[in-house]
Amino acid sequence: MAKRHTHTCPIAGVLNIFGDNWTWLVIREAFYGATRFSEIQRNTGIARNVLSDRLDVLVNEGILVREDVGENGTRYAYRLTAKGESLHPVLLALHQWGNEHVYGPGNEPVLLLERATGKPLQPLAPISRDGQRLTRAEIETRPGPGASKATVRRLAEAQE
Amino acid sequence: MAKRHTHTCPIAGVLNIFGDNWTWLVIREAFYGATRFSEIQRNTGIARNVLSDRLDVLVNEGILVREDVGENGTRYAYRLTAKGESLHPVLLALHQWGNEHVYGPGNEPVLLLERATGKPLQPLAPISRDGQRLTRAEIETRPGPGASKATVRRLAEAQE
Repeated sequence: MAKRHTHTCPIAGVLNIFGDNWTWLVIREAFYGATRFSEIQRNTGIARNVLSDRLDVLVNEGILVREDVGENGTRYAYRLTAKGESLHPVLLALHQWGNEHVYGPGNEPVLLLERATGKPLQPLAPISRDGQRLTRAEIETRPGPGASKATVRRLAEAQE
Repeated sequence: MAKRHTHTCPIAGVLNIFGDNWTWLVIREAFYGATRFSEIQRNTGIARNVLSDRLDVLVNEGILVREDVGENGTRYAYRLTAKGESLHPVLLALHQWGNEHVYGPGNEPVLLLERATGKPLQPLAPISRDGQRLTRAEIETRPGPGASKATVRRLAEAQE
């Protein structure tokens, strides 16, 4: 999105980095193991100048690392950092919702299976410290140490 | 994104609906309990015409429902449907990543706590049918019944 969000909101903070949806497809490619510009470009159909810009953003943010793997001349490979790898739950959540609600049961394009058993994963769910699945009503959102006054007000309204 | 993705990919399928990042902020507001146009507009700063468009998309997709709650004249309220509620893991995953990697520990703007204990949630993680946490290496992506030939080829490449 063109306008950056100034609220102290963890979701807006992520969206400010990701800019637009193309970036999520670049991340998807990184998770599928694509490392080369040409490979990512072919698999996503992103225009070269846009892809170049998004890769720069992801490298600057420490989500991807750019390595020179050329034996004769410069040739770059892009790989997920640990910070990038930790986007896995976001991708999984999008993937499961897309299978369930965009394509629907029996029409899933890509299945997510446990390798050892071949069984589908459970739907992602919030889990308490004690390992219990939580419903939305069992979760509280509370201002944290980094909340601005506007965020404190916003959350107070949400509790009313 | 302007261009729709034609690959049979569950992630691209979601992104085709969500269009741009504004839509995620509208969904965030719905999860915080905002129901009115003016309230969502104020809390996100989205231009009125853009918000109007995004709400129409979300209603048409069955993610929000629009109810006339006016006693004198028309007045709309927007609420999440069951399909919309099932976006909760996506929002949680974005929220946790934003707290951890955009703001960092000790600077989180909004905490996610178990209401009963006040303890923070565990980070979302993929879980097998038997209830075991899975690493990325323990998960296999395999073409599903709705995969196009291009998707089958793409996934075969990813296994190489």
